[in-house]
Amino acid sequence: MDHDLLGDREIPADAYWGVHTLRAVENFPITGQPLSTNPHLVRGLAAVKLAAARANQELGLLDTERGSAIEKACLEILSGQLADQFVVDVIQGGAGTSSNMNANEVIANRALELLGHAKGDYAALHPNDHVNLSQSTNDVYPTAVRVATVYGIEGLLKALTSLEDAFADKATEFRTVVKMGRTQLQDAVPMTLGQEFGTYAVTIGEDRERLREASRLVHEINLGATAIGTGLNAPAGYAEAACRHLGEATGLPLVTAVDLIEATQDMGAFVHLSGVLKRVAVKLSKICNDLRLLSSGPRAGLAEIVLPAVQSGSSIMPGKINPVIPEVVSQVAYEVIGNDVTITMAAEAGQLQLNAFEPVIVHSLQKSIAHLEAACYTLTERCVRGITANADRLRASVEHSIGLVTALNPYLGYAAATSIAQEALATGRGVAELVLERGLLTAERLEELLRPERLANLTL
Amino acid sequence: MDHDLLGDREIPADAYWGVHTLRAVENFPITGQPLSTNPHLVRGLAAVKLAAARANQELGLLDTERGSAIEKACLEILSGQLADQFVVDVIQGGAGTSSNMNANEVIANRALELLGHAKGDYAALHPNDHVNLSQSTNDVYPTAVRVATVYGIEGLLKALTSLEDAFADKATEFRTVVKMGRTQLQDAVPMTLGQEFGTYAVTIGEDRERLREASRLVHEINLGATAIGTGLNAPAGYAEAACRHLGEATGLPLVTAVDLIEATQDMGAFVHLSGVLKRVAVKLSKICNDLRLLSSGPRAGLAEIVLPAVQSGSSIMPGKINPVIPEVVSQVAYEVIGNDVTITMAAEAGQLQLNAFEPVIVHSLQKSIAHLEAACYTLTERCVRGITANADRLRASVEHSIGLVTALNPYLGYAAATSIAQEALATGRGVAELVLERGLLTAERLEELLRPERLANLTL
Amino acid sequence: MDHDLLGDREIPADAYWGVHTLRAVENFPITGQPLSTNPHLVRGLAAVKLAAARANQELGLLDTERGSAIEKACLEILSGQLADQFVVDVIQGGAGTSSNMNANEVIANRALELLGHAKGDYAALHPNDHVNLSQSTNDVYPTAVRVATVYGIEGLLKALTSLEDAFADKATEFRTVVKMGRTQLQDAVPMTLGQEFGTYAVTIGEDRERLREASRLVHEINLGATAIGTGLNAPAGYAEAACRHLGEATGLPLVTAVDLIEATQDMGAFVHLSGVLKRVAVKLSKICNDLRLLSSGPRAGLAEIVLPAVQSGSSIMPGKINPVIPEVVSQVAYEVIGNDVTITMAAEAGQLQLNAFEPVIVHSLQKSIAHLEAACYTLTERCVRGITANADRLRASVEHSIGLVTALNPYLGYAAATSIAQEALATGRGVAELVLERGLLTAERLEELLRPERLANLTL
Amino acid sequence: MDHDLLGDREIPADAYWGVHTLRAVENFPITGQPLSTNPHLVRGLAAVKLAAARANQELGLLDTERGSAIEKACLEILSGQLADQFVVDVIQGGAGTSSNMNANEVIANRALELLGHAKGDYAALHPNDHVNLSQSTNDVYPTAVRVATVYGIEGLLKALTSLEDAFADKATEFRTVVKMGRTQLQDAVPMTLGQEFGTYAVTIGEDRERLREASRLVHEINLGATAIGTGLNAPAGYAEAACRHLGEATGLPLVTAVDLIEATQDMGAFVHLSGVLKRVAVKLSKICNDLRLLSSGPRAGLAEIVLPAVQSGSSIMPGKINPVIPEVVSQVAYEVIGNDVTITMAAEAGQLQLNAFEPVIVHSLQKSIAHLEAACYTLTERCVRGITANADRLRASVEHSIGLVTALNPYLGYAAATSIAQEALATGRGVAELVLERGLLTAERLEELLRPERLANLTL
Repeated sequence: MDHDLLGDREIPADAYWGVHTLRAVENFPITGQPLSTNPHLVRGLAAVKLAAARANQELGLLDTERGSAIEKACLEILSGQLADQFVVDVIQGGAGTSSNMNANEVIANRALELLGHAKGDYAALHPNDHVNLSQSTNDVYPTAVRVATVYGIEGLLKALTSLEDAFADKATEFRTVVKMGRTQLQDAVPMTLGQEFGTYAVTIGEDRERLREASRLVHEINLGATAIGTGLNAPAGYAEAACRHLGEATGLPLVTAVDLIEATQDMGAFVHLSGVLKRVAVKLSKICNDLRLLSSGPRAGLAEIVLPAVQSGSSIMPGKINPVIPEVVSQVAYEVIGNDVTITMAAEAGQLQLNAFEPVIVHSLQKSIAHLEAACYTLTERCVRGITANADRLRASVEHSIGLVTALNPYLGYAAATSIAQEALATGRGVAELVLERGLLTAERLEELLRPERLANLTL
Repeated sequence: MDHDLLGDREIPADAYWGVHTLRAVENFPITGQPLSTNPHLVRGLAAVKLAAARANQELGLLDTERGSAIEKACLEILSGQLADQFVVDVIQGGAGTSSNMNANEVIANRALELLGHAKGDYAALHPNDHVNLSQSTNDVYPTAVRVATVYGIEGLLKALTSLEDAFADKATEFRTVVKMGRTQLQDAVPMTLGQEFGTYAVTIGEDRERLREASRLVHEINLGATAIGTGLNAPAGYAEAACRHLGEATGLPLVTAVDLIEATQDMGAFVHLSGVLKRVAVKLSKICNDLRLLSSGPRAGLAEIVLPAVQSGSSIMPGKINPVIPEVVSQVAYEVIGNDVTITMAAEAGQLQLNAFEPVIVHSLQKSIAHLEAACYTLTERCVRGITANADRLRASVEHSIGLVTALNPYLGYAAATSIAQEALATGRGVAELVLERGLLTAERLEELLRPERLANLTL
Repeated sequence: MDHDLLGDREIPADAYWGVHTLRAVENFPITGQPLSTNPHLVRGLAAVKLAAARANQELGLLDTERGSAIEKACLEILSGQLADQFVVDVIQGGAGTSSNMNANEVIANRALELLGHAKGDYAALHPNDHVNLSQSTNDVYPTAVRVATVYGIEGLLKALTSLEDAFADKATEFRTVVKMGRTQLQDAVPMTLGQEFGTYAVTIGEDRERLREASRLVHEINLGATAIGTGLNAPAGYAEAACRHLGEATGLPLVTAVDLIEATQDMGAFVHLSGVLKRVAVKLSKICNDLRLLSSGPRAGLAEIVLPAVQSGSSIMPGKINPVIPEVVSQVAYEVIGNDVTITMAAEAGQLQLNAFEPVIVHSLQKSIAHLEAACYTLTERCVRGITANADRLRASVEHSIGLVTALNPYLGYAAATSIAQEALATGRGVAELVLERGLLTAERLEELLRPERLANLTL
Repeated sequence: MDHDLLGDREIPADAYWGVHTLRAVENFPITGQPLSTNPHLVRGLAAVKLAAARANQELGLLDTERGSAIEKACLEILSGQLADQFVVDVIQGGAGTSSNMNANEVIANRALELLGHAKGDYAALHPNDHVNLSQSTNDVYPTAVRVATVYGIEGLLKALTSLEDAFADKATEFRTVVKMGRTQLQDAVPMTLGQEFGTYAVTIGEDRERLREASRLVHEINLGATAIGTGLNAPAGYAEAACRHLGEATGLPLVTAVDLIEATQDMGAFVHLSGVLKRVAVKLSKICNDLRLLSSGPRAGLAEIVLPAVQSGSSIMPGKINPVIPEVVSQVAYEVIGNDVTITMAAEAGQLQLNAFEPVIVHSLQKSIAHLEAACYTLTERCVRGITANADRLRASVEHSIGLVTALNPYLGYAAATSIAQEALATGRGVAELVLERGLLTAERLEELLRPERLANLTL
């Protein structure tokens, strides 16, 4: 039996959560995904509660007995225990209050148990008066979310690094494989496959750097702000102490925002981060589109590279192999881009001193980060590392190309070069033979000018 | 032990799925949500396989023994059994091939079991040669998705109806409660709270009608198209028979698309449906914003209505009650709007004879539909049905309003009426007393013109 | 010199607009695009004012002298005169009030002129008291917008029809050109180029039908609603008369909404229409992506079709021809999809009895419709009509294809067919020779089974 | 008469553009907005051509006579002349080729004129061979776009600074005005209006900093990359020299990208920048929503502040004043958010060595930047600077508030404080009298605890 301002409710005997959690579970039966599906956030909540308990003890607001019990309960959760007690739906009204109360109740009841009390004996240790002491949902929840988000980004940064490395290795492997570069899907001028794969490594490296910068913004917390940022009911020194303890507990270089009122209502860092995740998604999808184009075939396509076969491609077409890994990565990218719109709308909808829609921001960010991480690993391990090149076909495409004429542009002029290109296209003949036939250049000079390695600006 | 073109793999003894499913599970570790989290889709796949088995038997392509076993396995799945065997991630590459193969393997192995064979004894009954007979992923998967989507929409339509009814009941309850209407958040002219709530019922009713129309588009299937819509390997009469059997099995008025090649690649109906779901989301969010505005307070807000208290609102502010239900509904709306962008991008990315990104379209649509349904029910039951009005406050707001002067516009002219309004605003005095003071109308005439019920165009 | 509640302002002697317009021009210097860049909307405003003047005269509210002058001024605007007097920025605050006042002032001053009065002599004929009689911005502006939108859609429907016809003609022209169909950019099974182009005609035809349905929703107007839909200050019979006159003036089958309060605040029809325009955009972009893929080359691409050359492709690469028309169409599609998000957000932001953000909805819709129309025409005339096929190359791709094995699936079984496909891929040999070598089918049977026209399900 | 690979065309005698421009005008009749509507881009193109001419002369590729004439023509364009010659539509196919050729032709013809030749006498000075020497559209256009974008951002940064200053001034002005803070639109705990306005200054300052960081990314150019980044046809030293000359000509600290192949295809900086612009838009819209909420009324709203009246609010409701400036700003925000989706899709659609859709990215960015700048200025000058506070009403709202009980939470405990709040709400009585009635605190202690300045954490 538990009680709140709405009355009494029965609570299952083995539950650590209480009436506030129960009502939230009933009020928000939306996704069927409980908080426990976001383990970073559960850890973040426990870390904040641990830091608050330590700060409260340090400031003499909380006795050691209760304080130690709360700390122990938090540490258990940080070590992965009690995860199944975080049962509120990830999409919830109330600006995260139900997430905070779920944590307060689980920690209080576990602490009571550790102290030898019955669960629910809140006179001995109270979810609000002790676990939530000097706190409000409006500083606890955003802070926990930021810790969780930083944890998530760390994972994604590692995954991006591994993908970047895989592309860099392929760039080295393919560095002498000459091929036709393409602009607007039309044959342009020669390059190497190594250069092509090298751009993927470079572009992912840049994204990684941008993501790291965005992560720094998320290290700024508002713990100590309490309800609206004025710090009401948090004693002097609390914000500093809580931030210090949270930094120690998490190992993260967290800092307290300068203007806590602004920090309490502001979703800017999340909008920014989501924008950078969108940037990552755009790049990954573009790369995967390229991989699918370059591996199209096997006979009626470009067939420049071969992706490793990881499963049968068709229930009706025997032997068909499809680019399923790039396909799943693009789908994750589309999801991330959609999530960005969700986050943007939720951020824009904030009113006055709080944004009530932070839970859907958190849920969307968590999916974006986790799915991108998974997508990077599957792309690295099940696709990029096994790519091979059809080097002969690629070299031949350069030799037959009309695009070679571009290299003669400075020697023939744009008008004459255009005329050669037009005749080559109309007759199916080669650029070199036409140039020689018209006596525009000597054979030796021509051979030097059209050497693929020179055209690709390749220093061997 | 199972085998595919990539080699042999061990399969757990109790699994009904096989090597194709196993590889897909390994290739797509993205969301952690297996196909079984979309039960409508599992049912849709089973229904399609059932219909195909019946059509194949009718056309003499499949013997009765195997056919009956396949039918029984499908019926078991339709009744909810074997759901845990649908283990492929909801976001997957391969255009749904892995979903189709998961179904083929589970059905084949269950059918083998029913026939007294060992699981995996595919010589006796083969996932591709028998369960997938006359089919391709490219007609099976889109058809199953459409059946699943129609099932989902049916649920959402019911939820919308219940919300519409709740608002209509409130419109009746509040029909004589006069209040100030507002445009651009500024006091405008009088209306009744019943009129205000009536618009919510009307607007949801219109959305429901649009959703029903969009659902009709989804009843068009491409079963019989096989790989690209040319119907290769499906015998004459198959498409007609399979559609007929699927209609009977599902109870849905399905029709076969006229141009199967177009139907196989076209995501238009899903883009359209998502656009309509977005429309529903926009309306729900707007209504929920209104409810939050009207219930703002309790003392420093509009405080025109009171939403039922469903949970404590704050971990720090005692007694605070927040509009948590409208808040969660708006969050679902933002999610649906984000999903629409995901679906749009995935649809746009289709190439040539197929859209490889249908799984993320399906996943996004499924979430949009299911979450909207849940949001409608919680809004109906936990919010709208319990709303009460602060009728006295509302009537007083009309009587003190400057907006009353609008009703005098035809009698005073725009310039004189503006002058009255300006003086009322500057001095804090009432419109009526200023009109009388200036001798512009008689008291009787004025009283008649300013009767709130007249102003609200209310016929009692 | 003109005057409003804020004071006096000088107005240029040759201007027909007045102080309200002047202030709006100063307040909203956003895009630099005046209302006159949306001529459909200027016509819509004039048509509404014309209909209102006729209804007011019919109901005895407006004398014939003033009424006739207002009618004449409106007819002049409908005929294209005075367009340069609509000077307010297309993105404006105030829910369209400034657009309405711009129209009221221009019509009043032109009517005054026609009556022999000086411009600005509002005692003789007043922008609010006479031109805006029985009206509010909140019914005038949405109604004018709907008339304008219907005009715009009519143009787009014609453009879509012409594009559909062009694709249908190409489908006929290419009906015997066999080629490989592709799924997931991998060779699949044979089809004809005519079938491929036929799908484009079909899909555009479906979109056209959906657009026509969405247009019907836009025919519902709220004229007579006045400020918030209660019809305050509009006399009995006015809504009916005004709708009738507007229908006659525009030739459109307009109807008055049943619930005018709902209709005044509801942006549902615009969200819906934008969703359908997004659907059109998605299809056009997909088609244009296909055209770019199929015409890639000329030597290192698919080179299945040739797009007409409409300009030089490169400032550095002589003779290069790019698919510039499909490229511009895709860009318009991306713009339309972005506009849909703008429209969605603006619609969601409506509060209580009005949506204050309708101007940006209107501006976005207008761009989407007009740019799609232009894109369809340039695609039709400068690209589709001139497309030619590389028929020999296409037939050869079928004959060398591994995908042919799919047709043998029913005769060989999935496992044996897979083995053939794998050997063909590994060795570069043909499917037919491998089947014969293994003695799986006779030569005659094989030839019949692999006939391209049979595979494409082509009835000649 | 001018000529290209498609044949001859007549050019108007007074035009400086040529056949390439003419064909582009005919091919892309999309928006009706010529390049000249983006003056930053015209300047950017001229600056790039100027820098290229100087680099080419420095490297001995271009003689001084032609070089000087090209320089003079570029300087004229930089000074604003010839703007009307940039006639190609802003949305165009061809990846910017038509923009580059428009510039090449105008510069060539003006240079010819300066040299005493007839326009079109390309044997003397050629658009491609001389003006475009060592260049390709694919390095010229992105570089010009980046210069233009930096120019645009500079303007926006100034506008943001002026808005930030205006809010900071108001924060000072209102620093002692106590009021109720609100979370989730429900009364929370006290704060000051100065704190509230201070958050707006802080949040805009943060956005400004993020925008400045994003601008740095745009300073990286790919001039010297030529067609695909391999630098084909650009001599050694060219990239360095051209960047140096461009930096001098523009006064911007530009740098050449390390990997020119990556830089030529990468739209990452634009996606990133658009994400930051979206962040700015989200904040501005949130602030404007707050301003509209706080100024709602005048009698049936919150009425905490008064926005300056800048125009009449209604054509039917005399004296009504609407928050038209915040409304127009929110509309710009919605447009920017939609533009971000357009930019995202266009960036994702890039293929292989180039993104063909850069023109719509540029057009969308340009609108976002320019409209945000205009919105900031109108918000600053026509709204924020004139805002006044209803200080008495605000103080009264604190004194009557139930939220005061939060401050007593540490002294009474959550349960007792909740009981007080519930009774206050149910009876309409004050928190203080109930606390005294129950004898929970002394009057002196209570007065000290509830002092508004203390609650707002205000140090006077």
